[in-house]
Amino acid sequence: MTVSPQDLSLDDLMYASTTDAEDWSPALAGMMRYHMGWVDQRFSPLPAGSIDQGKRMRPRLALLACRAVCGLDEPAWHLAAAIELLHNFTLVHDDIQDQSDVRRHRATVWSLWGTAQAINTGDALYAASRRALLGMTSAQVAATRVLRIADAFDRVAMEIVAGQVTDLEFEGGREASHHDYLRMISMKTAAIVEFACWSGAIAAGADEGIADQFAQFGRALGLGFQIQDDVLGIWGSQSATGKPAADDIRRRKQSLPIILLREAAAPPDRERLNTIYANRETDSADVEHVLALLDAYQIRQAAEAHVAHHHDRSASLLESLAPGLHPEAVEQIRQLVSALALRTY
Amino acid sequence: MTVSPQDLSLDDLMYASTTDAEDWSPALAGMMRYHMGWVDQRFSPLPAGSIDQGKRMRPRLALLACRAVCGLDEPAWHLAAAIELLHNFTLVHDDIQDQSDVRRHRATVWSLWGTAQAINTGDALYAASRRALLGMTSAQVAATRVLRIADAFDRVAMEIVAGQVTDLEFEGGREASHHDYLRMISMKTAAIVEFACWSGAIAAGADEGIADQFAQFGRALGLGFQIQDDVLGIWGSQSATGKPAADDIRRRKQSLPIILLREAAAPPDRERLNTIYANRETDSADVEHVLALLDAYQIRQAAEAHVAHHHDRSASLLESLAPGLHPEAVEQIRQLVSALALRTY
Repeated sequence: MTVSPQDLSLDDLMYASTTDAEDWSPALAGMMRYHMGWVDQRFSPLPAGSIDQGKRMRPRLALLACRAVCGLDEPAWHLAAAIELLHNFTLVHDDIQDQSDVRRHRATVWSLWGTAQAINTGDALYAASRRALLGMTSAQVAATRVLRIADAFDRVAMEIVAGQVTDLEFEGGREASHHDYLRMISMKTAAIVEFACWSGAIAAGADEGIADQFAQFGRALGLGFQIQDDVLGIWGSQSATGKPAADDIRRRKQSLPIILLREAAAPPDRERLNTIYANRETDSADVEHVLALLDAYQIRQAAEAHVAHHHDRSASLLESLAPGLHPEAVEQIRQLVSALALRTY
Repeated sequence: MTVSPQDLSLDDLMYASTTDAEDWSPALAGMMRYHMGWVDQRFSPLPAGSIDQGKRMRPRLALLACRAVCGLDEPAWHLAAAIELLHNFTLVHDDIQDQSDVRRHRATVWSLWGTAQAINTGDALYAASRRALLGMTSAQVAATRVLRIADAFDRVAMEIVAGQVTDLEFEGGREASHHDYLRMISMKTAAIVEFACWSGAIAAGADEGIADQFAQFGRALGLGFQIQDDVLGIWGSQSATGKPAADDIRRRKQSLPIILLREAAAPPDRERLNTIYANRETDSADVEHVLALLDAYQIRQAAEAHVAHHHDRSASLLESLAPGLHPEAVEQIRQLVSALALRTY
């Protein structure tokens, strides 16, 4: 996925939502902009496109859903900016919670300025996301429609947080079945993808039925995306993901493959797995052992079947939506779905 | 200030904004409700009024401003709930940042469930505040007016966060003049009081001129309130504040009296003060020494003059507003202003 001229405007809109913060606290605006990839650690501007700003899948989907319904992007511009800012607010707080030092090949906010200021940075990005959203009124979206989207926006924010609460419970040792796990990622990851698709359609003036189908499409796409992420966290190559191979095993992350393995394994294998995951450190012999177990129980195939299931579901929902939508935009969504299904990073 | 029947309805409205969270994560809803004082640590309901839920000054002001303009509370009900939830979101995150173990005589969220889950709890209370706010549409407030209030709500949220960023910078050793300090508390504490007064008036249908005067009244009231808090943090009695006497000195808090002392003190006294404030621990001899310095330079009188200045300003702004407003509500605001000026806790 390459950077299109659209992304530049998206950045402009997002940047505008940080200017109030600058008047009140240059440090706050600086930390927000650092996280977004616009400035360096000393708050000096970085050339556009010089660093990884993430895949921007969510705002892209909102814009494409809008264009598919009404032929235009404009009604979803502010919405797209708001969604990307919301996503980034959750990343800043996740990085504190996971004690992650690196995000998109750069030092994380908390690792540079401490937990307390990183909490503030995330909070401010959330406030900025809301202000960007309400900018929709300037793009001639009716006030009642904006209010409806704003309410759903906060609802999805709360759902994401609930997903994060549950994820931390699992990481803290609460036993999870793969059903529990799928429910967790549905909240933590898929809800915002669903929202992007649904709200893009609503902004374009779609009726309830169409918007609901966009929502289902987005939820399936988001689930497939996260499970693919889990697969790559174990079997992805370092050059593609930017992380060491089998990094999720080394970090003892309770991702879907590990949960499927725990469910499938015979008692001695399960016990060995649990022992490794209960340790404070994981050495390379441990990693090799877990990889061998995953292999023995054909877990990669099982996890990839989950990806395929959600991918197929999203693809078929898209096709059932296609008649009556703008064909060019539908084709772009189709390509995005394929790119996500085939991605190796 | 006693609990009125209004507070029960306010609680109902706030509680309603946590019900979605319950479906997604009982733990999240439980932590939110624990902080708000509705449930205990095991998430069992507490009888209404059994614990300290704070002064609720901010929602009360929004309701009174609304009533003063239009004679009714209803248009500001959801707004009042939203403001109190917003305030509580900032408290949950402040407690993490300040490492405070106790709030309103109870263990803080982070001290019970850890930093990571407390971040989530604050985030969810912020989302809940937004959902409560948008409930205004159900109270027949016009959509365009709700959008205007919602935008200002996010603006004030960002201002509060900017104030907190600045406060942490001061606590971290950045030298602050009393002008810097007043600017910081204006953002961190007074902005939400201003917003409560302004938005209550706007919800009631006030014109710009009236709403602006309510805003100025609120800013002055909020500044006086915070400086009075600073005075009580040093000279308040334990029985009234719930904290040990001179607690702010023991915690080496950079409050207004300390900043005024640093500005007024002769070089040897200033050096001694800075040495005490640079230590990791403060013993009772240190506290006594700082109290003696404050006494020698008549800092209490200087700080109380600041309180009186803002109090007088808020009182005179209120009187200039009074003609044309509902007299009964104005009288209630007057009483609230007096109660805040005279409070000992």
